[in-house]
Amino acid sequence: MHETEDVLRQRHPAEASPSKAAAERLLKPKIEDVRPTSDESDMEAILHDEDRMERYTKSIPQDKGSLGEFADSFLESLPPRWRNWVVRGVFTFIMVSMFSFLVNRGATWLMALVFLIQFKCFQEIITIGLAVYRLYDFPWFRTLSWYFLVTSNYFFFGESLIDYWAILLRKDNFLNFLVTYHRLISFFLYCIGFVWFVLSLRKGYYMRQFSLFAWTHISLLLIVSQSFFIIQNIFQGIIWFLAPVSMIICCDIMSYFFGFFFGKTPLIKLSPKKTWEGFVGGAFSTVVFGILLALFLGHRPFFVCPVEDYYIDNTNCSIPPSFQPESYAVPRPFYWIFKILRRDPHIQLFPFVFHAIVMALFASLLGPFGGFFASGFKRAFKIKDFGDVIPGHGGLMDRFDCQLLMGTFVNVFIHTFIRVPNPSKLVTQILWLGPEDQLTVFNALREELTKSGLLP
Amino acid sequence: MHETEDVLRQRHPAEASPSKAAAERLLKPKIEDVRPTSDESDMEAILHDEDRMERYTKSIPQDKGSLGEFADSFLESLPPRWRNWVVRGVFTFIMVSMFSFLVNRGATWLMALVFLIQFKCFQEIITIGLAVYRLYDFPWFRTLSWYFLVTSNYFFFGESLIDYWAILLRKDNFLNFLVTYHRLISFFLYCIGFVWFVLSLRKGYYMRQFSLFAWTHISLLLIVSQSFFIIQNIFQGIIWFLAPVSMIICCDIMSYFFGFFFGKTPLIKLSPKKTWEGFVGGAFSTVVFGILLALFLGHRPFFVCPVEDYYIDNTNCSIPPSFQPESYAVPRPFYWIFKILRRDPHIQLFPFVFHAIVMALFASLLGPFGGFFASGFKRAFKIKDFGDVIPGHGGLMDRFDCQLLMGTFVNVFIHTFIRVPNPSKLVTQILWLGPEDQLTVFNALREELTKSGLLP
Repeated sequence: MHETEDVLRQRHPAEASPSKAAAERLLKPKIEDVRPTSDESDMEAILHDEDRMERYTKSIPQDKGSLGEFADSFLESLPPRWRNWVVRGVFTFIMVSMFSFLVNRGATWLMALVFLIQFKCFQEIITIGLAVYRLYDFPWFRTLSWYFLVTSNYFFFGESLIDYWAILLRKDNFLNFLVTYHRLISFFLYCIGFVWFVLSLRKGYYMRQFSLFAWTHISLLLIVSQSFFIIQNIFQGIIWFLAPVSMIICCDIMSYFFGFFFGKTPLIKLSPKKTWEGFVGGAFSTVVFGILLALFLGHRPFFVCPVEDYYIDNTNCSIPPSFQPESYAVPRPFYWIFKILRRDPHIQLFPFVFHAIVMALFASLLGPFGGFFASGFKRAFKIKDFGDVIPGHGGLMDRFDCQLLMGTFVNVFIHTFIRVPNPSKLVTQILWLGPEDQLTVFNALREELTKSGLLP
Repeated sequence: MHETEDVLRQRHPAEASPSKAAAERLLKPKIEDVRPTSDESDMEAILHDEDRMERYTKSIPQDKGSLGEFADSFLESLPPRWRNWVVRGVFTFIMVSMFSFLVNRGATWLMALVFLIQFKCFQEIITIGLAVYRLYDFPWFRTLSWYFLVTSNYFFFGESLIDYWAILLRKDNFLNFLVTYHRLISFFLYCIGFVWFVLSLRKGYYMRQFSLFAWTHISLLLIVSQSFFIIQNIFQGIIWFLAPVSMIICCDIMSYFFGFFFGKTPLIKLSPKKTWEGFVGGAFSTVVFGILLALFLGHRPFFVCPVEDYYIDNTNCSIPPSFQPESYAVPRPFYWIFKILRRDPHIQLFPFVFHAIVMALFASLLGPFGGFFASGFKRAFKIKDFGDVIPGHGGLMDRFDCQLLMGTFVNVFIHTFIRVPNPSKLVTQILWLGPEDQLTVFNALREELTKSGLLP
């Protein structure tokens, strides 16, 4: 609630300070205010006026920090600052438990979770867009947004499947058709939406229709594409999903703790609650947490095996190189410790520990900018939360703002350092070719390998 | 000029009709009107008000159909409808000549042309955005947009290069580094822009800063990604670029002609000048034109050879299958013609002729929607043209609106039907691997081929 009051105070310096009741009266939506106006000139006049933004976005459900009547009566006895803590804490605990449960269920459930979250986040963003641009006269405009969501999901999901399950799909003729023509089908599905949009353009609504079109596309770009990067990460092994997600959660929680207890120096104007103390404390904790997590999970096939090996072949995979122990020389400045202990100055670690450090650094240094971005966005539209799905936290987007950027980073990281051309995938691709081309490749390869001396 | 008058008449019914001078007074930007206001509340009040949109976008240069003093004095003697024709015609001719010259110069020049057009189109769109959101107080916001342009160009250009010139790049260590870390580098370049944007957020400007951020991203999505699809098409062979581009031009010109001479039934409200007669006539002419063009260009290596073969190896390429003659049975209903002529009811054609028909149909049926989209966009912001670079035509975006969608279609088409896994590319990819992995692939492949009976 503090943030909302700040916002109000900025714009109504006289009104907001006296009583909380007055502030709440301002926050409560009046039905007349949010009802659509179909008169063109009127609509043009009230449209997009930042000062009146609050009138439109008021209809978006906001977190009230309430847990239902019974719990609330108990919470009443606590001082307000602690009350928020309790609600937030309880729901953090609930979410972490549910998440752990799903992690134990394996990759398929996690992918379903990412899917669900993606849909809900998209809905939250689109709801804000529809409130801002007030296209209530076009009931199917919302449908169009969802159509684009389904289309882009079809496209991205297909691309992932083709990438990973190529062998399986080869066996089925119908799926084979979908694979071969995947891009063409997706493109035509998109074209249908595009034509639909163009045909729906109506005089006097142009500006807002284009704005919502842009809004939908930015949402797709931000949410759908990034959540598919996350799904691709799951394919690489659950740990590539679990570690970054936990790091962001850890960073969030620890920054909050450090900020709560030691926070003094404000970090950035966008989020007045964030402090340098929280930022640094969060970063340090996250790196430590990342190392521990890597050591804890790194030797369990359930977490480290690529999904295709573990689930599809149903055999124990060969442990990927990132998780095979290697001997590392301790940096010179620390030699003396090992001399005292009379031990060899080499330690056995698997490379993922270092990957984890890099990811933890990204999560704690660049990740928060995803959060700042979301804060700024909320301020632009004068809302406190993206929704009210999670009491004490707000909407799903409030929790997952940093996860998206992180997921993309991990995806790029995997693509660059981990999944560098995979021999078995190349063989798969070759076997997709016609028999003649398969032989062509084989002969060309034999020739090249003979040339380079690898074959006699 | 007709369109502008229409727009004016709609909104100022009393003023616009009496004299042309009055209309022109309204069109001419007054300096005071477009000057930025830094006062926050004032800015909020005037922001985004569709009715006042014209005040902002007035500063965008519009085509005046003028050819300089000398030519204008000659044109004065013509009736207005013909005057427009002449200016338009002259510049169509100039553009087509320049284009033909560049086509003769080969692929590199064409790619440079696409690059240039891409930059100019991006500039036109960003200029409109800056005029609409009036962020003159943030001189580096324009810089940020260009930064994103360069970043995304770096990303896409790199991806194309890696795809096509992998063999060349293997020889150079520095380029090798850029190839290996390409996505990571691009991602960090993007992150810098993202952080820059977040740090630049200033109270009272949030809404507009986010809008421009979205604006920039949509422009990147529309212009940069699609123009890279076009560049990829050039790599596949100049014909894959030249044929679709000419088809769109042909469709534009022929629709204009048919509409001019026979146009009666309006096609779509968005573009009142477009008629069903023009649409159908354009479609028919484009298909005929496409077939003739295919027959004319399809047997010249200069046009049909992939760029990598023709330019890099500097040898004559082996003609791709799409351009090798095949024997097609004439459809039964036409048998009698061949019976009368006493000829075999089979004709020799190369498959590209059919590809050309498909492309021509797309160009003439779906292509125009790119144009309608652009029309709607211009109407939303109350402008007649995207700029005034080409007299008689307007801005570059006015000419290339349909080219982008077409380029994407051709790219998908190539990806689906033409470039289906290329044996030599797969061999290249294998040779990128370490020596051990190369042998692994070879042995796995030999095993698989033996299993399937292709090898003894």
